[in-house]
Order: sequence, then structure tokens, then C-alpha cells
Amino acid sequence: MNELSPVATRPKTIADVATPALILDRRKLQSNADRMRARVAELGVQLRPHVKTCKSIDVLRVLSGGADLAITVSTLAEARYFFENGVRDILYAVGIAPSKLPQIADLIRRGCTLRVILDTVEAAEMVQAFGLAEGITIEALIELDTDGCRAGVAPNDELLLEIARRLSSDRGARLAGVMTHAGGSYSARTLGEFEDIAERERAGAVSAAERLRAASFQVEIVSVGSTPTVYYARGLEGVTEARVGVYAFGDLVQAELGTCGVDDIAISVLASVIGHNRSHGRVLVDAGFLALSRDRGTADFPVDWGYGAVCDAATGALIDGVRVESTNQEHGIITATSGELDWSRFPIGGQVRVLPNHACATAAAHDRYFVVDGGNDIVGVWERVNGW
Amino acid sequence: MNELSPVATRPKTIADVATPALILDRRKLQSNADRMRARVAELGVQLRPHVKTCKSIDVLRVLSGGADLAITVSTLAEARYFFENGVRDILYAVGIAPSKLPQIADLIRRGCTLRVILDTVEAAEMVQAFGLAEGITIEALIELDTDGCRAGVAPNDELLLEIARRLSSDRGARLAGVMTHAGGSYSARTLGEFEDIAERERAGAVSAAERLRAASFQVEIVSVGSTPTVYYARGLEGVTEARVGVYAFGDLVQAELGTCGVDDIAISVLASVIGHNRSHGRVLVDAGFLALSRDRGTADFPVDWGYGAVCDAATGALIDGVRVESTNQEHGIITATSGELDWSRFPIGGQVRVLPNHACATAAAHDRYFVVDGGNDIVGVWERVNGW
Repeated sequence: MNELSPVATRPKTIADVATPALILDRRKLQSNADRMRARVAELGVQLRPHVKTCKSIDVLRVLSGGADLAITVSTLAEARYFFENGVRDILYAVGIAPSKLPQIADLIRRGCTLRVILDTVEAAEMVQAFGLAEGITIEALIELDTDGCRAGVAPNDELLLEIARRLSSDRGARLAGVMTHAGGSYSARTLGEFEDIAERERAGAVSAAERLRAASFQVEIVSVGSTPTVYYARGLEGVTEARVGVYAFGDLVQAELGTCGVDDIAISVLASVIGHNRSHGRVLVDAGFLALSRDRGTADFPVDWGYGAVCDAATGALIDGVRVESTNQEHGIITATSGELDWSRFPIGGQVRVLPNHACATAAAHDRYFVVDGGNDIVGVWERVNGW
Repeated sequence: MNELSPVATRPKTIADVATPALILDRRKLQSNADRMRARVAELGVQLRPHVKTCKSIDVLRVLSGGADLAITVSTLAEARYFFENGVRDILYAVGIAPSKLPQIADLIRRGCTLRVILDTVEAAEMVQAFGLAEGITIEALIELDTDGCRAGVAPNDELLLEIARRLSSDRGARLAGVMTHAGGSYSARTLGEFEDIAERERAGAVSAAERLRAASFQVEIVSVGSTPTVYYARGLEGVTEARVGVYAFGDLVQAELGTCGVDDIAISVLASVIGHNRSHGRVLVDAGFLALSRDRGTADFPVDWGYGAVCDAATGALIDGVRVESTNQEHGIITATSGELDWSRFPIGGQVRVLPNHACATAAAHDRYFVVDGGNDIVGVWERVNGW
């Protein structure tokens, strides 16, 4: 239940938007989208955007540049929504659980090429038995662990071939390929580290595919990706597709990783100044952890942005020397990072924009984007599909 | 946009619920509700539950025990929703911003007793001018700072009387009382500290009310509250009402603060086991930071529960020696806190329930509750009103 406000559904400019609200700058989105399309073309792989960041068909249309794109999803709510909006090729990139198989079957029957991922014999057997019982074929990718950070089978593990055999043992399931995600790229700090992690991701995926092919399994899809590894990869030979999501918006973590600049960040949370606590040097705004998220992604980076960087609402320009220091549910507290706070920048009732540490987490707190095109006029309201 | 899944809208038991999902145990909610009603009766104050925790009329009906309760809200989405569900007396307890005044006016005109809070002369003037222009009277409470933790005017500050004068200078606005929230209660650890913070909250609010009354202002409402200070207060003499929210569900932070036991926690996130990473000792589940929230509220307590405590899905009993160690967007990673992980407790495709650090943050990640009544049968699906 997230109903549009009955009073202020279509504000004309940012100043009319009831806060907190998520602002999307379409120009920056367009520029980020163009840059990634050029990059994957240079690498010679297909782009399969991860829509867990945007959860919006309108954003996907910008990312795709008008092409029919295959996508990656993190929830079945995304799968249903994008399928109903015309997307036909979808990878559900979270290890499959039995309670989700009826929804998978429903989408496959309706004509969706919906593939699942798994990394255990047990899951392969469940998927195969379910597909057989339902009279459908569920295509699966085996998830690989190339950096020890989360899930997946090591590329050289005997389990890889065992899972492939279970998927190919009867009707009901089919091996479609392998996939991996180098989450470890987020702990890299130097160019060399990024390049090495990207190469491990590529080499792990390709070597697993080669082992499977050597054992006579068909491997059509070799899928890798994260925004940092795709930007920093020396090459992606042997890979067929790149899964990237956060590049669409960028965020403060990505800026620290060097995959975008702070000025490229396309989303921000619009907030109103609701109080001054002068004795404690605090500006209170009405964007708390529900609007900004609790993400502290920059805590371990050279620049710790707290819960977000603060920008002038009208110009979008960064206000130096302050950050969102702490949050409660619907309160954000802005303090000076050094020196005195310039109170004149924060009049009571005025607005600011807050750039997110982690675009996926912050965007997920909102059910729509108020879209601007560089300036302050609201040129559209785009919905998101949250939940599961 | 949070649509109910087309396939699994009304599961019969927990085992049928597509994960991740929010489970609410109505028996525990009832017990928590009864306990707080008895407590505020003992203290001789009115209960004004803060519905930012539950955001559900069905939950409020349990909290109220059938009475017509006044409530506290943190968003205007909550105000609209609860008003449309019959609640007539609402305190909007986040400092008012100008962009929200049209929505406030709309609700007041429709018959809602909706009060706002503020702590600056500027906000008082804006509210008064807006009310005058619209031909309505907006009632306001002055927010007080009794613990230096967030917003508010110090009870002995000359500003208190100045704001009161602006609110009373003409038609359009009216002073209705004072309110404070002792957020500092969350950093207390001993009974003496809790009692002292509760007493500062009470004494600060009452002394501000007395100063205003001595200056001939009418002060009907003297409002305080937080779950810890209301449970630990030695008394609430001079206070008229208590605002409490999280007591309804309890959570791991409240358990650490001693306001509830771990067994009293009424909500949990149902998750499926989607992977085993045996070489790293990790169980992967499909509840990540979007389902659990990024809240690390227990990080500074004697027992650090990571991103949540893990329970058996069928019995709800705590599984000792493990916790949710880390999260990605749709992945949770369960590890042993000491010793070896007992893999037999986490079969692939099996379910667990995760107790939240902070009930408000975790519940806000979901748009509905799957309600159980002590057991595993789903006895209801209750909606929440998220967003703004």
C-alpha cells in the first residue's frame, strides 16, 4: 500500500514536492546509460542490466537506448512487472527457493524466458522435479564463487559437474550456463586490485564454462558483472554478458570506487529543513533512515559521507563541509564535518538534496521518482516496483 | 507499486509463504499490547501509540483493546490512512515543513483533529500565516529537547515563550501543548540510567508546561515517550499522555534494553535457505538488507545480533550459536558465532525466521504482515501504509 498523496500528485517544480521524495535527474541517467553501453560494446559482451537498482520500466528504456534488452532481476515482483511491460528475457539472479517455483512456472507458461540460478545438488533436483511435474522446462545457470564473498561453487569444484548432471538428467530442467558476481570488487581500492578482481571473475566463469563443455555440457551463457569489474576489466574474453545495475544512478560508494564522479549521481533525496538545534550545531531535515536507508557504505572509504552528501536543492551543487551525520526514522541530522555550520544555507522550511551512499538501498525506500531534466521542473513521475 | 503476487496471495501456512515475508504473531502482539495498557494505566496517563512501528489499522485495533485511541504518526501517509480508517485524533510528530501544510489543511477540513509540532519561530510564523490564509486553525505542540539528542527547545530557553507568542498572535494557529522524546534512553544501560532519563524527560516537559502556564498560555497536552522511558519511569506526574511505538512488536534492541524478552518479539522475517557455502561456513538465505533492513542496532550492546537472530521457522524457537552476519540486497549470510555450524538445521529449501534488531526499520521493508496465532497457520494478511 503506497498511495499517491491526494493533494500533491503532480508537482510542477521541486519546490512543490512534498518531502521526503526521490529525485531522478534524467540527463545524468542518460549520460550514465550511454557510457555503459559504450563500455560493454568495447568489451564485446551483451549488456544485461540488473534492474534491482532502478525497478522501473521507464529507467530501463533509457538504459536500453531503445533496444530489446535482456535483464537481471533480484525479485519475482521485478520479473512480473518487467514481463508485463514487455521484457521477455529475464535472469532471476538470487538462488532459487522452492516456494518461488510456482511463480516461476507461471511466468514461463506466459511466454517469459525466465532463468534461475542455483549452486547445490539439492536445488538442481528440486528444480528438475518441479519442472517435470509441471510439464515445463526450467533453464538454470550454475552460480560460481570467484571471490569467496557470498554464494556459488568454486569453478574447479567437482560439485560443478555434479550439479550440471542433475540438471541434465531428465526433462524438467536444462543447464543454460554459468554466472558469477564479484562482490569482492567493493573492497578493492587501487586500479591494480580492481583489474585483478575483474580478471578473477572473468577467468573463473570462463574456466567453469570450459570444464562443463569439456564434459559435453552445453554452456550458452557465461555471465559476469558488477559495475566496478565491468568498468575496470582489462577484457572479457569468453564472457557472453555483463550484469550491472548501480551504474545507472551512481552513488557515493561508486564515486569512491572511481566508477563515477559525485556530479554524475543521478538520484537524490529531497528533504525539508524542519529544525535548527543551534546549541548542538545541528540542522534537522525530514529525511531519516526510511528515506535515506541505513546504508553506511562509505564508512570504510577515505571520505566517509555519513548517511549522505548534502546538496543545494535548486542547483544540485554539493554543499561543502557538511554531511548527514545521523538518522532516526523520519529525521536526518546534518552537521559540519569541520568548522562552523553556515546556517544561512539551511533556512527553516528550505530544501536540500541528499546524495545516497548506495543507490539501490536508497531508491528502494521510495515507490516513485520525481524526474527532472537537469533543472528544477518535474518532467515526469516514474513508478518503481518494490517488494517481492 | 507493491502488488500482491498473483500466485500465492493467501497461503494457508508459513510453509506456503513466498519468501522473504514479514510474519506477525498476534498472540505476542496481544500480550505486548496488554502489558503497555496496564503500564500507562498504572502511570495515570493516556496512551497515544506511535503507529510508525506498525503502520496498520489491524495492529492498532489490538493495541487499543477496542477503545477509540488517539495516535502519533511519523508521516502524512499514516495520517491519511488512519483517518480514513476511523481515527480522529492524530499527532504528526515530525517538525512541520511548509510543503506539507496543504495536506494538513485537507485533513483538518475533513474533520481530523490533526496537530503538528515545531520548535522554531520561523515554523510557528509559517503555520500561523498558512492557517490564516486558509481560514483554518492549526493546533501545534512545541517540541522540547530534554536530552540533547535531536530536536527541540530547551525547557528553560526564552525561545519557548517566543514561539508560544507567535502561535497565539492571531487566528490561524493555536498552542495545544508541549511534547518531547527521550531518544537518549537508547544509550542507557542500567536501571538507574533509564530512570534518570525518564525523569529528565518528564521533568523537562512538565517544567516547560509550567513556564508557559505561568505566562498565561493554555497547555492542555504534555506529551512524552519512548518505550524504554515509559517502562522505566518512576512516575509521570504532570504528564498527560505517553507516545510509544516499538513496544507493540518488541525487537532485539528492546530485549537488550530489558523492555521485553527475545521470546516476546512479535515480528520476524521468514526466509528460505538458498545456498550452503561450506568452505566458508555460510548459510545463504533470501532475506537481505531490503527484507531485514540495514539496521545494526545491537552493534553496541553486550549481545551483537548482527543483522538478526535466527529462529526455527516452524516453532519460532531461537537457534543458538548463529546470527545473520552480513547482508546484500536480497541475500542474508548466516554464520556460527562460535564453533561449528550445524548444517542439519538449514536444509536447502528449508525456512528460518529472523528476529529484527529494530522492529520499525524491518517492518517498513514490507507492505503486509502474514499473521499467525502462535502456530504456523496464516490467519490473516494485514496491510501496512508505507511511504509518505
